[in-house]
Amino acid sequence: MKGVDQEEVSRRRGIYFQSFGIYGGLAGLYDYGPVGSRIKDNITRIWKEMMLSEGVVAEFDGTSLTHEDVLKASGHYDRFFDFFVECKNCHTRFRADELIEKKGVSPVLDKGWLESKIREMNIVCENCGGDLGEVKVQKLMFQVELGDGISNLFLRPETAQGIFINFKEYYRFFREKLPFAVITTGKGYRNEISPRRSLYRLREFNMMECESFFDPEDERWVREPDNSVKVHLVTKNGEEFHVTPLEALKKGIIKSQPISYFIGFAIKFYARIGIDTGKVRFRQHRKEELSHYSNDTWDAEALTDIGWIEITGIAHRGTYDIGNHIKYSGKDLYAQRIVPRREEIREKMEIDFDLIKNEYPEGSREIIEAIRAGKESIDLKGDKISLARFVKRVKEKVVVDRENFVPVVIEPSFGLDRIIYTLLDHNLAQREGSGYIYLRLPYEVSPYGAAVLPLMAKDGLQEFARKVFSSLLSDGITAIYDDSGSIGKRYSRYDEIGVTYCITVDYDTLKDGTVTIRHRDSMEQIRVDSGRLTEYLRENPWNGKKS
Amino acid sequence: MKGVDQEEVSRRRGIYFQSFGIYGGLAGLYDYGPVGSRIKDNITRIWKEMMLSEGVVAEFDGTSLTHEDVLKASGHYDRFFDFFVECKNCHTRFRADELIEKKGVSPVLDKGWLESKIREMNIVCENCGGDLGEVKVQKLMFQVELGDGISNLFLRPETAQGIFINFKEYYRFFREKLPFAVITTGKGYRNEISPRRSLYRLREFNMMECESFFDPEDERWVREPDNSVKVHLVTKNGEEFHVTPLEALKKGIIKSQPISYFIGFAIKFYARIGIDTGKVRFRQHRKEELSHYSNDTWDAEALTDIGWIEITGIAHRGTYDIGNHIKYSGKDLYAQRIVPRREEIREKMEIDFDLIKNEYPEGSREIIEAIRAGKESIDLKGDKISLARFVKRVKEKVVVDRENFVPVVIEPSFGLDRIIYTLLDHNLAQREGSGYIYLRLPYEVSPYGAAVLPLMAKDGLQEFARKVFSSLLSDGITAIYDDSGSIGKRYSRYDEIGVTYCITVDYDTLKDGTVTIRHRDSMEQIRVDSGRLTEYLRENPWNGKKS
Repeated sequence: MKGVDQEEVSRRRGIYFQSFGIYGGLAGLYDYGPVGSRIKDNITRIWKEMMLSEGVVAEFDGTSLTHEDVLKASGHYDRFFDFFVECKNCHTRFRADELIEKKGVSPVLDKGWLESKIREMNIVCENCGGDLGEVKVQKLMFQVELGDGISNLFLRPETAQGIFINFKEYYRFFREKLPFAVITTGKGYRNEISPRRSLYRLREFNMMECESFFDPEDERWVREPDNSVKVHLVTKNGEEFHVTPLEALKKGIIKSQPISYFIGFAIKFYARIGIDTGKVRFRQHRKEELSHYSNDTWDAEALTDIGWIEITGIAHRGTYDIGNHIKYSGKDLYAQRIVPRREEIREKMEIDFDLIKNEYPEGSREIIEAIRAGKESIDLKGDKISLARFVKRVKEKVVVDRENFVPVVIEPSFGLDRIIYTLLDHNLAQREGSGYIYLRLPYEVSPYGAAVLPLMAKDGLQEFARKVFSSLLSDGITAIYDDSGSIGKRYSRYDEIGVTYCITVDYDTLKDGTVTIRHRDSMEQIRVDSGRLTEYLRENPWNGKKS
Repeated sequence: MKGVDQEEVSRRRGIYFQSFGIYGGLAGLYDYGPVGSRIKDNITRIWKEMMLSEGVVAEFDGTSLTHEDVLKASGHYDRFFDFFVECKNCHTRFRADELIEKKGVSPVLDKGWLESKIREMNIVCENCGGDLGEVKVQKLMFQVELGDGISNLFLRPETAQGIFINFKEYYRFFREKLPFAVITTGKGYRNEISPRRSLYRLREFNMMECESFFDPEDERWVREPDNSVKVHLVTKNGEEFHVTPLEALKKGIIKSQPISYFIGFAIKFYARIGIDTGKVRFRQHRKEELSHYSNDTWDAEALTDIGWIEITGIAHRGTYDIGNHIKYSGKDLYAQRIVPRREEIREKMEIDFDLIKNEYPEGSREIIEAIRAGKESIDLKGDKISLARFVKRVKEKVVVDRENFVPVVIEPSFGLDRIIYTLLDHNLAQREGSGYIYLRLPYEVSPYGAAVLPLMAKDGLQEFARKVFSSLLSDGITAIYDDSGSIGKRYSRYDEIGVTYCITVDYDTLKDGTVTIRHRDSMEQIRVDSGRLTEYLRENPWNGKKS
């Protein structure tokens, strides 16, 4: 929001700050403080609740250390890198595609193209004006150094892969019925060339990912796309629409039913946590923007002080991931569909047990095991025995009523840090006619439910306030107690971190047991019996009001 | 629990399983599946709620990538390793101390001692009986390989350090008053030599840590230790007591008030999530067991099928961590206490502004800035000027009413994976007289609040059951719907993953709208109006009952 320096407020008020500050900090690494951690927790909880209430959604919680083979299959091992150029003079590094994009040209992610474009456009160092070296490649995955005896490990660049490789666990859990979805929240890691703008581009970041699985012959989520809220859509051809997700599907603006469903899901989620949905659009990727695994992607973008930023990507990953894991692991990750019954002729291997037992009465078990293990010969006490003649291949009729298929994946992936950045950008506001800052967060996102403030730190007001505080805590309301400084300064402090209600204990409280509840946004105050506080906060009468 | 194979049930029912199973798995890395993720989430939520309701507890959420300097200061860089021996024949590795401990001798963590003990006791390879090589050291931290331009990074071996280095952010947040505590939940990483027993020893593990800060002159938490529940204590001298935490403090069995407080906290937490507290003891570390940072540690240990295992450590870290971070970073991480007012003589620097302005009327600003920046000389248009003569050192009297001190840290650190291992061990039970397995979890820890089951998949029972399911979901009850297989098999399935209630829709439902609620542990059934289900589940009438 204009006029308020988000990073300054965040540092000062414990929302977020650079990690390892006392050791000089590290680019692209940020921590959430006392206020930000609570906001992050609340957003995560709401997202999970909304997802789980879809009814066919389960959770996954996997390791961030990731086996090399997983990333070879997923394509990250070979294809996950950025192109950069380094200034020959000051050695600052820049992403080659970003330098070109800033000049108004859509970049193509190809080394030769980027190289020739940078020369053609005479692009120089943004920092010192120096000449730029040639375009180079930087791998985006962090490799972890190992002790002996364990294979190569990487930190996961996305949380999704753990879900794909365990598809069968969830397929069984959902009684082998599609569609269903699996969600996970946690860290991802990317060795970014130029981390920047605090939470905007991090080397360690927080994701909330949902992988939904479909039969490609029936790509429909269990519920209809929303038809109550209009969304702003920008197609890959640059056409813009303001329609509901359901209308977008019916008019063919969005081809995939689940993508239009999750666009509706996203906009309701943003609205619930307090993002200004008037500043959100869904933009379809142009062909050259698509990730290596995606056929069609719609990004949710939010308008902030640093322009439109991607906060969620809804990608149609097709059969890419599961198909590749089947290929690389040789394991069965298929789903099955019921088909009309038919007869098929299949070849079957039959072992001639009698022949084996007759010829090798003592070694028969070893021979049978070797055949079952697919061996062609074995050594039996120095005697080399060819196994082919013990096996007959016979044809048999089987009745088939199921067939395997590779499930299709549609993935809404939410960037939690950028969602928090956007939330703060949209809601850090200034009171009219003063520099006084307040953070307009919905009650359920607020870091604390209430701040309990004795008017003065004397005359028994503290003791009463502490009792109010304790009773809120034991009712499960997260609350904070503060008796330091003037009441005005304390209001200001809690307004700035988004606490919805300040509860003041004053001299009238000692007489009649009532306290003042002050609402952060409207600054309205009402007087309530201190025994009814929890009830009152739970009803949350100002909910949804913005000042 | 005897007779039930926890790992087998966990794999089969999606509680937890080895990561990257389709690629052969990796030792020491496990994932939580659809059931385990929910249980883990619920335990984490309860722990956070209990911690935050202490009133002076805030949250932290930091990066797991950690700056080398942090770990040099914390002592992990130099001291965090294990001693191992490798079999000369089969090359299996063992922790040297564990081999000795298994022979009934308390190990000393010293290379020479371990080496001579292994020879003296003639210890051989557990795997093949071969000879063991010499005792070697393995660093326990994972180093992360870097692109150019960023400093050395490690994966954090514990979550605590991020809190210590940001002490000042929290000190300000709590208005510079002690005590307070900061909690964090998340991953830790250790390159273990011999990861084993599924969740027992992992290379990537989940922690819930609380760092509480005290004035060393007043080491008391804000609440009194519990006096309602007896705990089993084993002191470093091997003495055993069954007393309440408050009694233990009063009798001097536990010296530290906060340690006895957090022992009471832990036992109440365990009881709430469903651990059998009769199988929990608190054992004080002997001197040779103490970590490099600790003066006094009490481990909570739980009795499981693999013996007594540590599930929580409550460590008195003294001023070790914050003191070292002050030393290594040169930054102020002190707290302050109010002391009786006194006068002190201090030396102060005074700048002679008049002299500067007289001699260098045009360069005076640069000169003053250079002095303030601590420079000894500057170049002013080619003229090198020494600055010393513009500065006078004067002595002045100041009134002092505060003094710095290094806060003391007491840390209850909960190992989440081992807590889950213990919870399953204590609660995976078999029905008397049958092999039928059920998982006795408290309602608030259950992976799902209820399973909704139509008796048959026909005659409109499915449709009614789906309506019941939807209405539970929209009331915020996590529920699961299942119409596959016989009702008995479905009961069994949901009993085995710890769902407290099965709700059956049958032919009577179609007549009068009532459904059957069946309780997992008692197998009691009652008939309830389907419109009152949510209310009924919230009241949770069987809570606390164990069959």
